[in-house]
Amino acid sequence: VTDDQRGPRPPVVGMVGAGQLARMTCQAAIGLGIGFRVLAGTPDDSAALVCADTMTGDYTALPDLLAFARGCDVLTFDHEHVPGEHLAALERAAADKAGAGQSGPAVRPGGAALRYTQDKLAMRERLRAFGVPCPRHAPVTDLAAVSACAADWGWPIVLKAVTGGYDGRGVWVCGTPEEAAGVLAHPVVVFAEENVAFDAELAALVARSPHGQGAAYPVVQTVQRGGVCHEVLAPAPGLAAGRAREAQQMALELAAELDVTGLLAVELFAGPAGLLVNELAMRPHNSGHWTIEGARTSQFEQHLRAVLDLPLGDPWMAAPQAAMANVFGAASPDIFGRYEHVMAADPGVKVHLYGKQVRPGRKIGHVTVLGSDMAGLRSRARRAAAYLATGEEGE
Amino acid sequence: VTDDQRGPRPPVVGMVGAGQLARMTCQAAIGLGIGFRVLAGTPDDSAALVCADTMTGDYTALPDLLAFARGCDVLTFDHEHVPGEHLAALERAAADKAGAGQSGPAVRPGGAALRYTQDKLAMRERLRAFGVPCPRHAPVTDLAAVSACAADWGWPIVLKAVTGGYDGRGVWVCGTPEEAAGVLAHPVVVFAEENVAFDAELAALVARSPHGQGAAYPVVQTVQRGGVCHEVLAPAPGLAAGRAREAQQMALELAAELDVTGLLAVELFAGPAGLLVNELAMRPHNSGHWTIEGARTSQFEQHLRAVLDLPLGDPWMAAPQAAMANVFGAASPDIFGRYEHVMAADPGVKVHLYGKQVRPGRKIGHVTVLGSDMAGLRSRARRAAAYLATGEEGE
Repeated sequence: VTDDQRGPRPPVVGMVGAGQLARMTCQAAIGLGIGFRVLAGTPDDSAALVCADTMTGDYTALPDLLAFARGCDVLTFDHEHVPGEHLAALERAAADKAGAGQSGPAVRPGGAALRYTQDKLAMRERLRAFGVPCPRHAPVTDLAAVSACAADWGWPIVLKAVTGGYDGRGVWVCGTPEEAAGVLAHPVVVFAEENVAFDAELAALVARSPHGQGAAYPVVQTVQRGGVCHEVLAPAPGLAAGRAREAQQMALELAAELDVTGLLAVELFAGPAGLLVNELAMRPHNSGHWTIEGARTSQFEQHLRAVLDLPLGDPWMAAPQAAMANVFGAASPDIFGRYEHVMAADPGVKVHLYGKQVRPGRKIGHVTVLGSDMAGLRSRARRAAAYLATGEEGE
Repeated sequence: VTDDQRGPRPPVVGMVGAGQLARMTCQAAIGLGIGFRVLAGTPDDSAALVCADTMTGDYTALPDLLAFARGCDVLTFDHEHVPGEHLAALERAAADKAGAGQSGPAVRPGGAALRYTQDKLAMRERLRAFGVPCPRHAPVTDLAAVSACAADWGWPIVLKAVTGGYDGRGVWVCGTPEEAAGVLAHPVVVFAEENVAFDAELAALVARSPHGQGAAYPVVQTVQRGGVCHEVLAPAPGLAAGRAREAQQMALELAAELDVTGLLAVELFAGPAGLLVNELAMRPHNSGHWTIEGARTSQFEQHLRAVLDLPLGDPWMAAPQAAMANVFGAASPDIFGRYEHVMAADPGVKVHLYGKQVRPGRKIGHVTVLGSDMAGLRSRARRAAAYLATGEEGE
């Protein structure tokens, strides 16, 4: 963003995708007073319901992306599904405009970085080349190759879709050759990974600006079920300070190495072998929702500051500890009828709903509780999330 | 809000007015997942720029108000300027619909309460009748009456417009009969008030729901210049705990007595004579902007919870202390060009801009700093606000 663009007109950030990440980024943009627009698949998308500047269109269609980009100073993303060739085209369009003395929207993060969130095999290979500890992996095309991996690493073997997986989709833990054969029968390109033993899953969230400034959030523990994040505990309970610093350092170095602009979330396994990188995301991340109230600068504001190349905000905690629990849709859709109970039972719980139609298993919101007694915070967050979803207090 | 309305469709709150208070309420509504719409005078109004459900119209025109109210579950207000007869008509329309078994929007706060923010003379008389300590006052229509007040209370005498004043407008501190005569020459109905000596100006912010639940924020000190709030310090430095409780209690009792639903801000003089009530507001208030980061429940979320008759949120502080400073427009409009400096100089400062065109003296944003060293927080907030406004660090 040049000085010209930063005149009396506020800078405009366009976010491709209009899920809950865009919705919460929209809240942060309102505070900063910048322009913010979203490219939504439908007018009912979570962010489209609340963003005053919504365009509906198809993120897989280059003309829609180019139309959306017009008038934006920066383009950024709510998800990693924009085709790589379109990212390249958007970057070329911006470079051409810059060559003509005009300013086209900067694409942040750029396609070269986003590639490593779109192609998990490429990510594994790049990380390994950079010396980052990862689970062992191998490309596989048939059962013989999978069995060869298993001979080395033992069963179960994890098969992962190279592209398109998220929230547990595209990941199969195969206990037997028969199960692996079943996965290989799908028309999906997969690779094999060892099934890592771990004590906890962690996430290290950092931001990096085009200037190269970095900021690291406290490392958190994520509690997953079926590959889906259910709870986030900040900071990760029982994590040694040295190990936490190691994770932050690794995430900051990775952000620089991959030339990430904006947020980078590094999902990690912590186990007897130390830290191993599981996944990367280059956008606001479920493991950082607690930062809305729990950190001085929320991940959503931080992402906007980073992609606008503004100085980053203080990422440190606003309370000693925070617990976040996701709210998943259940059979009964009447979530607002249950507000009364949840709010009366716990005036300190912060409820975030995403405006999504309630469908069983769908992530429709989250709750955050701050304080200094992690066991208590966690139980309060779980209880509120379970009640919102089902009208019952859960475990 | 009945169970019927609270079904799968989220409840819809309509806020009349689209200034910065509506803008920040919009942010809170996004988090709660409720529907939120604003009635804006122009599409460039602060909240109209960011609210996905904006209607432009005239809040002094009953047809516009009735059209806006359609589909809302609750109507509430960003300012106190909706004519009393229109408020009464909206309440009658809701009562008629209720009589017919339908649900019309509840008006919260109601016209009977809002009257005391619209007519300052009626407010003074009602407060006095309720036994609330206030500055001495008297209706005046000519200089003889003002001079009679001055004979009792001494000069200067404060003349206040009965209706329509805000942010120092409609208040004249007259040191001499000549100055008073000059004010009386205006075509404005005024009354006289003693010029109270005070050590500090305070504000007690409370919320009250239709159920009658109340919640009180910590009492703050407001620092005014020319009748305009420049800084807010939370909690009020040096305020004795007993005095703070007295102010909170008074505000809660007043909210109940006046049947306020939503927020009530009570501006107070603290001086040798104890606490005296200066002004009332029944909406989010500049003295509560610090609650966005500084309290567990922001005043904007609290107002929405109160008018929706939901259980109120925890109003307590999220940090030991908070300092807020307003940002006023200055000669140079390039506020975004100065973001870089302010954010780099102080990564912990929280900047809020309202999307308003920069005009000298216009309130265009605010900054908040949290911590535990009030002198330092105050100086950080002042410096950031001054630099954003002018490009200079101020005092």
